[in-house]
Amino acid sequence: MTAFDGIGGAYAENLPVIMISGSPNTNDAGAFHLLHHTLGTHDFKYQIEMARKVTCAAVAIDRASDAPRLIDHAIRSALLASKPAYIEIPTNLAAAPCAPPGPISAVLAPERSDPDSLAAAIDVAVSFLGKKLKPMLLAGSKLRAAKAEKAFLELAEATGYAVAVMPGSKSFFPEQHPQYIGVYWGDVSTKAANNLVDWSDGLLCAGTVFTDYSTVGWTADPKGARIFTADMDHISVTGHDFSRVLLADFLSGLAQKIKYNDATMVEYSRFRPNPTLQPAAEPEAALRRGEVARQVQSTLTPNSTLFVETGDSWFNGVQMDLPDGARFEIEMQWGHIGWSVPSCFGYAVGAPNRKTIVMVGDGSFQVTVQEVSQMVRLHLPILIILMNNHGYTIEVEIHDGAYNNIKNWDYAALIETFNAGEGHGKGYRANNGRELADAIAKAAANTRGPTLIECTLDRDDCSKELMSWGHWVGAANARPAAAI
Amino acid sequence: MTAFDGIGGAYAENLPVIMISGSPNTNDAGAFHLLHHTLGTHDFKYQIEMARKVTCAAVAIDRASDAPRLIDHAIRSALLASKPAYIEIPTNLAAAPCAPPGPISAVLAPERSDPDSLAAAIDVAVSFLGKKLKPMLLAGSKLRAAKAEKAFLELAEATGYAVAVMPGSKSFFPEQHPQYIGVYWGDVSTKAANNLVDWSDGLLCAGTVFTDYSTVGWTADPKGARIFTADMDHISVTGHDFSRVLLADFLSGLAQKIKYNDATMVEYSRFRPNPTLQPAAEPEAALRRGEVARQVQSTLTPNSTLFVETGDSWFNGVQMDLPDGARFEIEMQWGHIGWSVPSCFGYAVGAPNRKTIVMVGDGSFQVTVQEVSQMVRLHLPILIILMNNHGYTIEVEIHDGAYNNIKNWDYAALIETFNAGEGHGKGYRANNGRELADAIAKAAANTRGPTLIECTLDRDDCSKELMSWGHWVGAANARPAAAI
Amino acid sequence: MTAFDGIGGAYAENLPVIMISGSPNTNDAGAFHLLHHTLGTHDFKYQIEMARKVTCAAVAIDRASDAPRLIDHAIRSALLASKPAYIEIPTNLAAAPCAPPGPISAVLAPERSDPDSLAAAIDVAVSFLGKKLKPMLLAGSKLRAAKAEKAFLELAEATGYAVAVMPGSKSFFPEQHPQYIGVYWGDVSTKAANNLVDWSDGLLCAGTVFTDYSTVGWTADPKGARIFTADMDHISVTGHDFSRVLLADFLSGLAQKIKYNDATMVEYSRFRPNPTLQPAAEPEAALRRGEVARQVQSTLTPNSTLFVETGDSWFNGVQMDLPDGARFEIEMQWGHIGWSVPSCFGYAVGAPNRKTIVMVGDGSFQVTVQEVSQMVRLHLPILIILMNNHGYTIEVEIHDGAYNNIKNWDYAALIETFNAGEGHGKGYRANNGRELADAIAKAAANTRGPTLIECTLDRDDCSKELMSWGHWVGAANARPAAAI
Amino acid sequence: MTAFDGIGGAYAENLPVIMISGSPNTNDAGAFHLLHHTLGTHDFKYQIEMARKVTCAAVAIDRASDAPRLIDHAIRSALLASKPAYIEIPTNLAAAPCAPPGPISAVLAPERSDPDSLAAAIDVAVSFLGKKLKPMLLAGSKLRAAKAEKAFLELAEATGYAVAVMPGSKSFFPEQHPQYIGVYWGDVSTKAANNLVDWSDGLLCAGTVFTDYSTVGWTADPKGARIFTADMDHISVTGHDFSRVLLADFLSGLAQKIKYNDATMVEYSRFRPNPTLQPAAEPEAALRRGEVARQVQSTLTPNSTLFVETGDSWFNGVQMDLPDGARFEIEMQWGHIGWSVPSCFGYAVGAPNRKTIVMVGDGSFQVTVQEVSQMVRLHLPILIILMNNHGYTIEVEIHDGAYNNIKNWDYAALIETFNAGEGHGKGYRANNGRELADAIAKAAANTRGPTLIECTLDRDDCSKELMSWGHWVGAANARPAAAI
Repeated sequence: MTAFDGIGGAYAENLPVIMISGSPNTNDAGAFHLLHHTLGTHDFKYQIEMARKVTCAAVAIDRASDAPRLIDHAIRSALLASKPAYIEIPTNLAAAPCAPPGPISAVLAPERSDPDSLAAAIDVAVSFLGKKLKPMLLAGSKLRAAKAEKAFLELAEATGYAVAVMPGSKSFFPEQHPQYIGVYWGDVSTKAANNLVDWSDGLLCAGTVFTDYSTVGWTADPKGARIFTADMDHISVTGHDFSRVLLADFLSGLAQKIKYNDATMVEYSRFRPNPTLQPAAEPEAALRRGEVARQVQSTLTPNSTLFVETGDSWFNGVQMDLPDGARFEIEMQWGHIGWSVPSCFGYAVGAPNRKTIVMVGDGSFQVTVQEVSQMVRLHLPILIILMNNHGYTIEVEIHDGAYNNIKNWDYAALIETFNAGEGHGKGYRANNGRELADAIAKAAANTRGPTLIECTLDRDDCSKELMSWGHWVGAANARPAAAI
Repeated sequence: MTAFDGIGGAYAENLPVIMISGSPNTNDAGAFHLLHHTLGTHDFKYQIEMARKVTCAAVAIDRASDAPRLIDHAIRSALLASKPAYIEIPTNLAAAPCAPPGPISAVLAPERSDPDSLAAAIDVAVSFLGKKLKPMLLAGSKLRAAKAEKAFLELAEATGYAVAVMPGSKSFFPEQHPQYIGVYWGDVSTKAANNLVDWSDGLLCAGTVFTDYSTVGWTADPKGARIFTADMDHISVTGHDFSRVLLADFLSGLAQKIKYNDATMVEYSRFRPNPTLQPAAEPEAALRRGEVARQVQSTLTPNSTLFVETGDSWFNGVQMDLPDGARFEIEMQWGHIGWSVPSCFGYAVGAPNRKTIVMVGDGSFQVTVQEVSQMVRLHLPILIILMNNHGYTIEVEIHDGAYNNIKNWDYAALIETFNAGEGHGKGYRANNGRELADAIAKAAANTRGPTLIECTLDRDDCSKELMSWGHWVGAANARPAAAI
Repeated sequence: MTAFDGIGGAYAENLPVIMISGSPNTNDAGAFHLLHHTLGTHDFKYQIEMARKVTCAAVAIDRASDAPRLIDHAIRSALLASKPAYIEIPTNLAAAPCAPPGPISAVLAPERSDPDSLAAAIDVAVSFLGKKLKPMLLAGSKLRAAKAEKAFLELAEATGYAVAVMPGSKSFFPEQHPQYIGVYWGDVSTKAANNLVDWSDGLLCAGTVFTDYSTVGWTADPKGARIFTADMDHISVTGHDFSRVLLADFLSGLAQKIKYNDATMVEYSRFRPNPTLQPAAEPEAALRRGEVARQVQSTLTPNSTLFVETGDSWFNGVQMDLPDGARFEIEMQWGHIGWSVPSCFGYAVGAPNRKTIVMVGDGSFQVTVQEVSQMVRLHLPILIILMNNHGYTIEVEIHDGAYNNIKNWDYAALIETFNAGEGHGKGYRANNGRELADAIAKAAANTRGPTLIECTLDRDDCSKELMSWGHWVGAANARPAAAI
Repeated sequence: MTAFDGIGGAYAENLPVIMISGSPNTNDAGAFHLLHHTLGTHDFKYQIEMARKVTCAAVAIDRASDAPRLIDHAIRSALLASKPAYIEIPTNLAAAPCAPPGPISAVLAPERSDPDSLAAAIDVAVSFLGKKLKPMLLAGSKLRAAKAEKAFLELAEATGYAVAVMPGSKSFFPEQHPQYIGVYWGDVSTKAANNLVDWSDGLLCAGTVFTDYSTVGWTADPKGARIFTADMDHISVTGHDFSRVLLADFLSGLAQKIKYNDATMVEYSRFRPNPTLQPAAEPEAALRRGEVARQVQSTLTPNSTLFVETGDSWFNGVQMDLPDGARFEIEMQWGHIGWSVPSCFGYAVGAPNRKTIVMVGDGSFQVTVQEVSQMVRLHLPILIILMNNHGYTIEVEIHDGAYNNIKNWDYAALIETFNAGEGHGKGYRANNGRELADAIAKAAANTRGPTLIECTLDRDDCSKELMSWGHWVGAANARPAAAI
């Protein structure tokens, strides 16, 4: 049942995870048996009923002959919706024989857009954008789930529009691209992207999700007649509504028909902020958040994948300048602290040729620390930048209290206890810039296990972006109830 | 949502835990806002609907004026049923003013038995037991939830019957009592309790729960006409059925009317096994499971509470001889590995004057290791006996595979990383009996923090009880499906 | 599944109806059988899951030994909550042997108030009402479900307060009582009750339910600091909140402590409307609604029970002057047309010594007309006043359209077709006052079967109260959605 | 909520009915209003949650902008699955403006089979059937929902196989076709179809549903290695399993590849029963069931649609010999008495050029009698053959009791009361064959309204098929529970 949290996260983040659970021997229900690993009642269905709430499909294989059909259905549902699915198999059926499933195309073949609706939606978009003086594009977090990143790039280049991304879709559009204007995130945007978004009179939102977090407490929530929304399988704009139009088909098709208009890029070129030159800190000066960010920035290559944990790591990470090819992973919808360590572990197992880096605060790190021992066990050279600011700093900024304090650990030493004489994890503590640089260099050399670098920070050393964002989100949380 | 696992465990184990969850600002649903910490849909009710499956009451405080009524209802429901409840409070109502609740008796006053039903049930019991030649008592795990331990003792002494307990109710009847004949657990019983239970012609089962685990894979599942079942609020025996009879009322009332019959004690005195004299191991010999058990046994006092984690610790613990006053904690219904460490932490917070000891295997320990740092933070002198047999040994005995292997850690050193220069946890590794004895002595002296003793064991060094039990439970799991 | 409508109505109207449903043979689920009378899937639980939504308890007897416990639980739950319950019994268990249930007190014994909470609530009420200059009482529809009619009368007489009732609780307080001031129903109140209620500075609401219907589209919705709410098991007033206080206990207890204050009666005596003298219509004049009401009024005796169907019959009925002892039945919460005919049939079976009269419009009558043949079959002398105004007149007043027209029938002749030569039903049509009087006289003489009198009315001949109420309710329905 | 019964029936019978329900004004939930037509609680979601259990899609339009997307989704889901859907619209949004929906193809375009799976399934079928000596076809009730009747006919003619139909799919294959061998229904089959089905070594079951009713209490339940199952979108046979293969595609595709083999027709020609010559009854002899069936048979034309109500009408109807073009409607899965009268009414509205005939018993007729007045209102010339055998005869044959008796009505006269001087319904009673023939002749002449012919039968005058079937179904119902 613990897995439901991760499954809920997969639902929120549009990831087609398959959860497989054992279930009671098929003879037990009819025998009115009570069983271990259950609530101690005769109800054996409560788990699948809970699973239904956080998956797009949940099936119970109550007899072997149903297995090919139901398992294929669950997997296909997950792939099409890019949502998790749940499969439950009784303990005595796990090895039962059944027919082999049919051709895999029955599972894998994608859905198609309705041709008439696709054409009509594209026509409406051409017309809508064609009338705008200052059209631009905004990439959202569902762009990847919709397998539409490439089509979005095509459209961007066909239009010449300025392109902003939302924080949950950072890296879905190449940051070194001339049309890239930064992360649109209200007051905490990068590269002044918000100024252009606010100015635009026609904003094509592709796969966007606007929440209290991504809108900075509803202070940056674009809506109304200037918005054209292209969702995963649905297109809408004032006066028009099209279903069964897949995002990639729409963006590709629109790229063929839309006319070029670089007005927003022209304007952006006028106020594009100059890059900030951040000098290296004094080598022996007490380590500060900014210096950590500066050094992590320097490690990023086209082969890097940067995970940023909920907390100030979000803001540090969003500010990073990504080389083309670098990927960025963030759990902004579900926002469960502790997410990053097991996630980057699984990612590194699946993508062994990429360089995985995770920035995580001490509060979050403690939630799932044991997964680091898995990295040791499987010899994964993950770089863990542990931002030790002694507590739940993001919560401090939203709503402070004693519950935001946690026990400090000796994080660097922890790695050695996971090695236990038979692993290659490394742990370092960096109290200043020099120590951090040394540790990063050692990490680069450690190819046989994870390297954790504890960066010791003052409890109040957080980004100004977190402070601003925390203020607005806290205000949104606190809006008073309507009088009844 | 992670908390649902613990809440499910509380349901299974009959514990009135109150789960409080924040929920969206009351303005967000009507505004069609999407929110962080949710699935990213407009459904904000999925969490409470999941909670309903694992609680006896789940309430959402959607306006402040409902708070006194609904919160009292949830708490009262939990107390009466001895099951968890769920309370959900929107982020903007947590501090909203409301009327104070009325007298606490509205929450705390217990339910009463129906007098007529109680009298009739007692009469039936007097008649049923009066006709038996070999009546005895069996204490089950719901005895405590029913607040009926004292009444059960009264009944035992009024009848003179032999008394066995089930593994989940060990310590609910004093083990030094002359009528105590051991733990009834089929083939893995203690003190030959199963021989007497099998022989008895009249078994009053008080608060018992028979599962595949407690019946050793349905090999020890008493039923039929010789069984008299007294459940938490329900009495049944062949031909009779009474509702609304509370267990404590029933047992106390029966104690007043039942006649004395010590036939089962007479018989038990004939075959009562002599105590096993286990000599101390050679001080320098490689440490073995049996020696650990022997030394832990010697630490138990009337003030001890022994937690035993799912795994071989169950069997080691059940074999212990408890001084009167000692308590025993086991999660046999839910059986979630990782339970014992946070559970004994919470217990020690609530019962600071007791001596808390936990026996836990390495596989389980890794699941919730971070809670040890809480023990350090709060200076709790818990003794952790870590049985390091290098993997999920209970699973090895049920169904083995590579997934039962885990990364070894340096558990003793781990404690020091939690201290991080500001705590008093201690960690030791015992490779032989002498080292274990030394460590136990040092633990006794460490009153300012937890002491972890890693006992290094061979991977195959498990109790014969686990092997036997694992065999039968595995067989029960594997019963083939009925032909359809 | 059709029964769910009636069960939902019982829930809405606080009636402890027990619904018993057959269910599949217990062997069919495990055999993966598809069955008739089901959806044609392997899910046999959808019906009980639907039932849970409209009952206070829903149980499935999956083995005979559970029957005594679960059936008693369902019945007791229904009686305590005054709500429907659902019991499902597999086709092959209906006649299976099981233990007899225990003493009936386990089912029937009432719950008790928490004594401390009761005392505190009474104290608060004494204080609250004691400070008011113009206190009065308002009786609500839950008064009967709470078995508190008698206690309410005690309180009324102990206080001397003026007493109004809500439309759903008409007849719960004797209308000939000197303190009775009419039905409080906003603009469509009787006896100017609304003037006094609006003037009162302290309104004890006992078992009241305020809906769009009972508040006349939220135009008469008393709330705020002058309201003291005594619900079925809960007391609340600004600053105080008490749970587990049963209404009857509260009202009786309050009657012992409250001080007398007849200020509202004094005031009411100043403006009490004089009775309206409605002269008989010309005997041969075309029949009008008012004349029907006048004549029905004259038939009412202390032994009468008057059922009024949803529609203009509500307004005709609420205006009636009830002799003490007469009862009034209305389904104001659920408001399902067609309710009155089967309801009064069941009532007459259960109360054969009362004189049952039903006023029903033609639209409603058609919905459940076949139940009249049951009255014939069981020789029940029910008087059916069929107000034939040719359509759904209440809907005409709320929102008109062609769908409000229905086929006219020869209602008088219909009865003879139900007799079919072997019954004693009578049917008459009254086109004028004389014919109606004749028919009523004949009905009085027909003691062996129902008498239906079709009163022919103009389609627009409805009460002014319906017109006013329909206006306000229609406006409440049509409030525009909030801007999003 | 009453509509749920019909919706459940639509689910069971694979009919894409759209249920539209009003729901509360969108302002009421946030205002904590209680409302009429609800349970009287603040839960306004219970109805849609109930609807989910009996529909394939249930949507609530909580804001107007969602209407195009959600309504299209519900309708499309219903059409694809051939199951009912539910749409809920708040009272204040029914007329709210929203974008027009996109092209209708987004709703109507059918799904496609997976090409690889389709090809593989056809190959397996060619191989499976090619090896059989005695292959034949069995048509099931889902053939129509799958829009596969035409493809099934193609396959039949391509193979030369004998074709049987199940009772719920009578008329889905032309009965005058040379390959038609009758209705397969175990002991109560027509034309000895069961003998051939039992003899066949390869049975392609297309859209079949085997229930206790259609298998005559599991006495005629073909399964095992000789069965090839082609379901609506799924193909299975021992050792093979294919999803996403649509039935019509499969049958058409198979027809192109399968080789001809008329072995079963050759065998059938050897034992094909001769037609039964049923002489007309004596004109003045008391009317008997057989004579009614004989005369109804004679009225059937290619333009007829015969509805048969649950009860003996099933058996009378299944025995009829249908001219090609005639259709047959039966509700065998849901089996709700009272179904036929409103169903044939709706059918006649939708298919005004067909001749609609319904055979219905008196017990069923009473359940929904009022719908006959709708036929009068809309001038529909439906012929109602009312088999008045004085009670629930089908239940008499399964399990008799006093509850099977009902009040007799004067059914013929009833029609006149529905006319009420302004309609053209006709009612006749036939006590002998002559009167029945006269009435049928008059019915043929009545083109402006329904004609009901009450056929007076002895209570025990039922078909031998009903008796046999009732025996076996009753036995299946009564199988004892497994010992626990």
